[in-house]
Amino acid sequence: MARPRFDVLGIGNAIVDVVIQTNDGFLSENNLLKGAMSLVDAETSAALYDKSGPAVEVSGGSAGNTISCLASLGASTAYVGKVFDDPLGHIFTHDIRSLGVHFTTAPAVAGPPTATCLVFVTEDAERTMQTFLGACVGLGPDDIDDKEIADAAVTYMEGYLWDPQAAKAAFLKAAACAHGAGREVSLSLSDPFCVDRHREEFRNLVSNHVDILFANEDEIISLYQTKSFDEALQAVRGQCKIAALTRADKGSVIVSGDDVHIVDAEAVVRVVDTTGAGDAYAAGFLHGYTAGKDLPTAARIGGICAAEMISHLGARSQTQLKQLVAENLSP
Amino acid sequence: MARPRFDVLGIGNAIVDVVIQTNDGFLSENNLLKGAMSLVDAETSAALYDKSGPAVEVSGGSAGNTISCLASLGASTAYVGKVFDDPLGHIFTHDIRSLGVHFTTAPAVAGPPTATCLVFVTEDAERTMQTFLGACVGLGPDDIDDKEIADAAVTYMEGYLWDPQAAKAAFLKAAACAHGAGREVSLSLSDPFCVDRHREEFRNLVSNHVDILFANEDEIISLYQTKSFDEALQAVRGQCKIAALTRADKGSVIVSGDDVHIVDAEAVVRVVDTTGAGDAYAAGFLHGYTAGKDLPTAARIGGICAAEMISHLGARSQTQLKQLVAENLSP
Repeated sequence: MARPRFDVLGIGNAIVDVVIQTNDGFLSENNLLKGAMSLVDAETSAALYDKSGPAVEVSGGSAGNTISCLASLGASTAYVGKVFDDPLGHIFTHDIRSLGVHFTTAPAVAGPPTATCLVFVTEDAERTMQTFLGACVGLGPDDIDDKEIADAAVTYMEGYLWDPQAAKAAFLKAAACAHGAGREVSLSLSDPFCVDRHREEFRNLVSNHVDILFANEDEIISLYQTKSFDEALQAVRGQCKIAALTRADKGSVIVSGDDVHIVDAEAVVRVVDTTGAGDAYAAGFLHGYTAGKDLPTAARIGGICAAEMISHLGARSQTQLKQLVAENLSP
Repeated sequence: MARPRFDVLGIGNAIVDVVIQTNDGFLSENNLLKGAMSLVDAETSAALYDKSGPAVEVSGGSAGNTISCLASLGASTAYVGKVFDDPLGHIFTHDIRSLGVHFTTAPAVAGPPTATCLVFVTEDAERTMQTFLGACVGLGPDDIDDKEIADAAVTYMEGYLWDPQAAKAAFLKAAACAHGAGREVSLSLSDPFCVDRHREEFRNLVSNHVDILFANEDEIISLYQTKSFDEALQAVRGQCKIAALTRADKGSVIVSGDDVHIVDAEAVVRVVDTTGAGDAYAAGFLHGYTAGKDLPTAARIGGICAAEMISHLGARSQTQLKQLVAENLSP
């Protein structure tokens, strides 16, 4: 089989993050569920923004973050996601294309504006997200280009795609197309509350459509409704080719057939903002994987990227990840 | 005289910064004058943005930064500046109002969009700015509310206001109004190239309309076209009530009548981005000054704020400045 044009093609909700530093009091006054990603309508989002402190705007979206991180690592990448043809949509498009990511999804010209996510970062570096899906609800099967999917070693999708209705069909079309071309499909479970919303469908996806699964401890426990991480680990064994399970400062566990690898976390001097940690881990792992590294090495690259991401505000990298990985992987 | 409603009212170009980390090669390829603020038209700005890496959007503008910093310090503040009624204008308005700043300038509804400044931050933490003035050109005397000016202990204006034509008249109207009410007028020289563009007018301003002048070493040397900082210091003596002259890691020198105070710089662990250092210094100084502190103490507060600002990306504070100053000023 010819070497594919793209190492990884990501499909996700194209979102601009509005990052706001705040405190626990603000979260409780506004009944925000700490640590979660909640969906809100345009009015709720606007009302909350009005009450919020000063913000920084930066491109986001889970798969968008992962693909940006992969591009920073030197991978060949593509992205599929729906923005509106408005200033925030232009910002999203600029930021991802400026990294060399192939991004040609047609922007919406009718309907809601570009999606925004109010990201509240508290002093403990936890992030609480309120997402207005906006133009993302317009992503559908017509936005999936069979040829692009067939030309990517891995097609990576975020679980959040299950929230806007039409994106599910896009997801399944892309998965079928990838497998038809002999490529692989990867899924991130995104968020334990997202898993709650779509548990049965996600279980079916993992068993029947996913080769490489990314989940953190809460997500995998939610998926299989187990009492412990170890039970969830046993439950996912054999369901898909590889499950990369992240456990924050406990590192990650890679399950693949009979193999189980336990990889410790990288040291972090100061955790500033955990937004994007999982996205960055997936990027590092997939970079190692598509470059032919063994699973523990891929997991270490994931850990290095996650450690960098949580040491600053926002979910897009502020350093040359390629060089950082080279420095940290060398003995 | 009654205690004024505002400690400081700032007038400036209302700008959203588009912050981009880059390298010296990019600056030279695009003929950008390192360290300077250059004015560009909409087309040049768009073409440069297209060639730039991923960005972070954050409210900026020199006086806007100073007033935001003053609000973080707990001062009572107001701001006058012109945005367009568009998404970036809404971002600017949200950010400054969310700090409690009184900001009621009517946004433009015709003409160019909200101003943007492409801020290129190189690895040496220097910033190189390309400003598209956009809606700022619409700021004029009609935007100056006599009552607001009369109700501010200090009216603070940025030298950059001399770039859009109509803002000069707004500046002079505000200065006359402040003095008529027995208040004081403060000016920041903004940038040595800005001084080059308006040297004679700035000299006249300083001698006839300004009580408190802020300038860095390059700017004060440019204003009086001297060979050394010491000669510039002698030249500014007696021209205005107070001149606060900043010298980066050499600290600052305060000249007031016969008094000259030399205040050392605060220690900085790692300089990340010098954008906003001068703006933050002015905020800290004016906060101390309007609170009745002596000049060396006001200068120290300025230095503490500047040190915080240059330790992160962007020109708006990421910490509780009020607490930081309290901790650092105590013996």
